[in-house]
Amino acid sequence: MEKATEGYRGRALELLRKYGAKEGQLVEVFTSDGLETKGLLIPRYEYADDNHIVLKLKSGYNIGLEVDTIRSIRTVTEESQSANHDFVTPSKPSEEDLQKKKRLLLVSTGGTIASRVDYRTGAVHPALSASDLYAAVPELNKVAIVDPEVVFSIYSENMTPKAWSVLSSKIIELANSRHSEGVVVMMGTDTLAYTSAALSFSLIGFEMPVVLVGAQRSPDRPSSDAALNLRSAALFALESKRPGVYVAMHLNENDERIAIHSGVRARKNHTSRRDAFQSIDTPLVATVKDASRIEWYENSKVPEKTPPPSSFNFKTHFEESVALVKFHPGFDPSVLSYLVTEKSVKGIIIEGTGLGHVSDDTVAVISELVKRGIFFGITSQCIWGHVDLNVYATGMDLIAAGVTPLENMFAETAFAKLSWVMGNFNDTRKVMLTNLVSEFNLRIPLSKPENEES
Amino acid sequence: MEKATEGYRGRALELLRKYGAKEGQLVEVFTSDGLETKGLLIPRYEYADDNHIVLKLKSGYNIGLEVDTIRSIRTVTEESQSANHDFVTPSKPSEEDLQKKKRLLLVSTGGTIASRVDYRTGAVHPALSASDLYAAVPELNKVAIVDPEVVFSIYSENMTPKAWSVLSSKIIELANSRHSEGVVVMMGTDTLAYTSAALSFSLIGFEMPVVLVGAQRSPDRPSSDAALNLRSAALFALESKRPGVYVAMHLNENDERIAIHSGVRARKNHTSRRDAFQSIDTPLVATVKDASRIEWYENSKVPEKTPPPSSFNFKTHFEESVALVKFHPGFDPSVLSYLVTEKSVKGIIIEGTGLGHVSDDTVAVISELVKRGIFFGITSQCIWGHVDLNVYATGMDLIAAGVTPLENMFAETAFAKLSWVMGNFNDTRKVMLTNLVSEFNLRIPLSKPENEES
Repeated sequence: MEKATEGYRGRALELLRKYGAKEGQLVEVFTSDGLETKGLLIPRYEYADDNHIVLKLKSGYNIGLEVDTIRSIRTVTEESQSANHDFVTPSKPSEEDLQKKKRLLLVSTGGTIASRVDYRTGAVHPALSASDLYAAVPELNKVAIVDPEVVFSIYSENMTPKAWSVLSSKIIELANSRHSEGVVVMMGTDTLAYTSAALSFSLIGFEMPVVLVGAQRSPDRPSSDAALNLRSAALFALESKRPGVYVAMHLNENDERIAIHSGVRARKNHTSRRDAFQSIDTPLVATVKDASRIEWYENSKVPEKTPPPSSFNFKTHFEESVALVKFHPGFDPSVLSYLVTEKSVKGIIIEGTGLGHVSDDTVAVISELVKRGIFFGITSQCIWGHVDLNVYATGMDLIAAGVTPLENMFAETAFAKLSWVMGNFNDTRKVMLTNLVSEFNLRIPLSKPENEES
Repeated sequence: MEKATEGYRGRALELLRKYGAKEGQLVEVFTSDGLETKGLLIPRYEYADDNHIVLKLKSGYNIGLEVDTIRSIRTVTEESQSANHDFVTPSKPSEEDLQKKKRLLLVSTGGTIASRVDYRTGAVHPALSASDLYAAVPELNKVAIVDPEVVFSIYSENMTPKAWSVLSSKIIELANSRHSEGVVVMMGTDTLAYTSAALSFSLIGFEMPVVLVGAQRSPDRPSSDAALNLRSAALFALESKRPGVYVAMHLNENDERIAIHSGVRARKNHTSRRDAFQSIDTPLVATVKDASRIEWYENSKVPEKTPPPSSFNFKTHFEESVALVKFHPGFDPSVLSYLVTEKSVKGIIIEGTGLGHVSDDTVAVISELVKRGIFFGITSQCIWGHVDLNVYATGMDLIAAGVTPLENMFAETAFAKLSWVMGNFNDTRKVMLTNLVSEFNLRIPLSKPENEES
C-alpha cells in the first residue's frame, strides 16, 4: 500500500508515474472526449479514491478527472511555480462594462464556499480579502460587475443574533454605496437557514433580491458545488426582479438545477448531501437551470406577494436575550426558569412534540413565567405541519397558560423572527402572528371534535 | 347558519331532516353501492364539513358516509338507547381458540389510538379498563386471542425515562405470564419514536416482535387511521417471526399499506398527516398490505441481523439524569453548566448544526464539563446524514474536548440510548458507539482533504 502522504495511490498513481507527472506541476491532460485540460496537479482530496486526479485550473477552481478517461498527460514545467498564485485580481470596471453589466454585491461571511485550500501548506483559508473573494468567482466577472466585500470570516456555527444585526446593516449600507442591483451572501451552511430567516425580516423594505448561498464541498474539491451554487445565486439576484431573501443550493445531486428557496422556509435537512436544503411545507420559489435560466414554480408567483407595511422596513436590530429550547421526554422545565431568572431571557421558542405539546409539569412552569411577562412561542419538532393547540387537552392548557402557537413556522425561523421582533417592536405576540413574508402558511384547521370545545 | 351545537349543518342536516333522523338514534343507511349500514348516528366531528354523516357501528368503530351516496335512511328507534354500550366484552377463550389462534399481548399506554369519545357527554376517554381496550379492537379477536392490558393512560408527552423502565418490565412480565407470541403497544404518537427507540434497547433479548402503534385521528372520527394501523401492527407482531421493536403507521395518505419502521430509525416528521412517521437514513423494514400481508423490503432482511451479545439482554433501567439540548445561534452554553451543577445531569446529547458543530464558546464549556466526567454525545439537527467531526476545525476541537460523535443516530434515538446506557453500563462511550440494533448505519466517510489531517 502507498502511504497517504504520497497523495495519489493505486491506479491514479500508476497513471501519473507513467507520464512522469508530479504534484505541484502544471500539466495538460488529454481525455477521451477530445478535450485538453490545463492545470496544476494537486494532491488527492477524495478519501480512498484512486479513480481521479485533481487539477487546479487557472480560474482557481479544481476539477477531478477520471483515470479511465485520460489518454495522456504532458507536463508543462516552465509555468508550474507561478500557476498557483495566478489568480484574477480585481480591476476597475471599464466604462463599457459599467453601461452593459449589472452590479452585484458579493458579501462573504466565511464558510466552505468562501474557502480555498493552499495545497503547499495544507491549510484551509476562509477568503480573507476582497481580492481573494474576487478571484474565487472568475465566471461572475463575465456577466456582472462584482463588488466583493468580506463582512465576517467565520464558521457559521459562530453566527449570533448580534452578527445578524451587523450583517443586515452592512448589506443595506454597501448596496447603497455600490449602487448594487442584487446581493449574494456567501456563508457556511450550518446556520444558513437561521440567517436567511433573520435577514428575511431585517431586510423588509429592501428593494432588491438577496440570495444566501453556501457549499457542501469546498471549492478545492473536485465534487464542489460552490461554483454552480454561486453562479446561480448571482443570476437570480440580478435577473429575478423579485425583492426578498432567498437560499440557493443544489436541487438534487446532479449539477443541473439549483433550487431557490424562500429564506423563511428553507431548512438544512442533511448533514452532507449537496441538496441538503429543503423548502418546508411550501413549494420552491424557482430553480435556476445551468446557471443561466430561471424557471419559476407556478405557485410561487401567484398570488402576487403583497409587501408588508412600511412600518416594518429596515428594522435591523436583533434581540440577544432569546432562546430556543427543545422539549424531550423527561425534560426538566427548571431550565426555562434558569434562562429567565439567571440569564434575563425575555422570550423563548419551544420546540414541542406533535401538534405543539409539552409535559404537564412544563406547562405549569411556562404558565408561571408567562405571568412574569415572558413570551413563549410553540413550534413542533416534527418540522413539517402546523401546530394546533385546539385538539388535545395539553394544547388547551398551553393556550390557557398564555403561550402563542406559531402556525407552521419551524423552530429555526420562529427563533430568528422572535429575536427580530423583540429587537424592534413592543407587541411581540401580535407581530409574531402577523404573516410578513410568508413565514407561515394559511392554516387548514384539523378536524376538531366538538366534544372538546366544551 | 346553523349553530355548531346542532351538530350537522348544510347538506348533511337537510338529509337527516328529510328522513327524520336525529343524533343518538340507531339508523340503517342505504347507499348507492347497494350496501346497508347500521349504526348509531353521532354528531359530526369533521370541522366545517357538511358532506358526511357519521355512524358508530356496533364494533365500536365509526364510519363516515358521504351524503351524495345516501339513498335513504331508516330509523330503528327500539334499539337506540342501548346501542352505544353494546360493546364486545372479553370472554374466556375456548379450547378450540387456544389451539388455533395465536396470543397477542395488547398493551395500552394511552394516546389518540386508545381513546374513544362519549358522544353524550362530549368527553374523550383514554381507554381505562381492559374491557374498554378489548372492545376497541373487535377485528383482532377473530384472528388472535387478545390479552388487553392497560399499563398507563397518559398523553405521550408525559412519558419519561422512568416510564420507559416500567413499560419495559411490564411487557416482559406480561408476555411471560400470558404466553404471548407477539406484543402490540398502543400509545400517543408525540413521543412514540422516543419510546420505540428506548424499548429497542431495553427489550434486547426479548424473543418476539414488539410493535408500537399510534393514530393521528381518534377512532371516533370517520378518517381515523386507528383500526388499520392496529390490525396491521397485530399481524406483524404475530406473523413476522422477527424479534425486535417496530413502529407501525400509515405509509401514505391511502388506507392500503402500513409501514413497518425499525424502532430506532423512525421519526415523527409531520404534526398531523397519517403518514407522519418516516424511517431516517434507512429503508423500511416492511409494509403490511390490507392488514393481511407482510411485504418485506429486500434490504431489511439481507444481511440477516446478528443479535447483540447476551450481556445486553433485558436491561430495563433508564437513567433520568440525562438531557437533550439543541444548539442554536446565540446559544448560551451556561445552560449546560446549569444542568450539570444544579440538576446533577450526567450525560447530554447535543443537537448540533451540520456535521455536528457548536459555537466556539460552547466547545469551551463542553470541554470543561467533560473533564468533570460528564458524557457529551453529538448529533445533528439536520436529522438526515452522519455527523463527522473530522472535516472542519470546529469538529476537531470537539473531538479534542472529548465529545463522542454519534454517527447517524438522530437526536431522539441518541437520547433514548443514552438514558438506557447510563442506566445499565459503566463505559458510556463504548456502548454508545456499539451498534446494537442498527441504531446507526455504517458510515461512508466524507471525502476528507489530506491537508486537514495535519
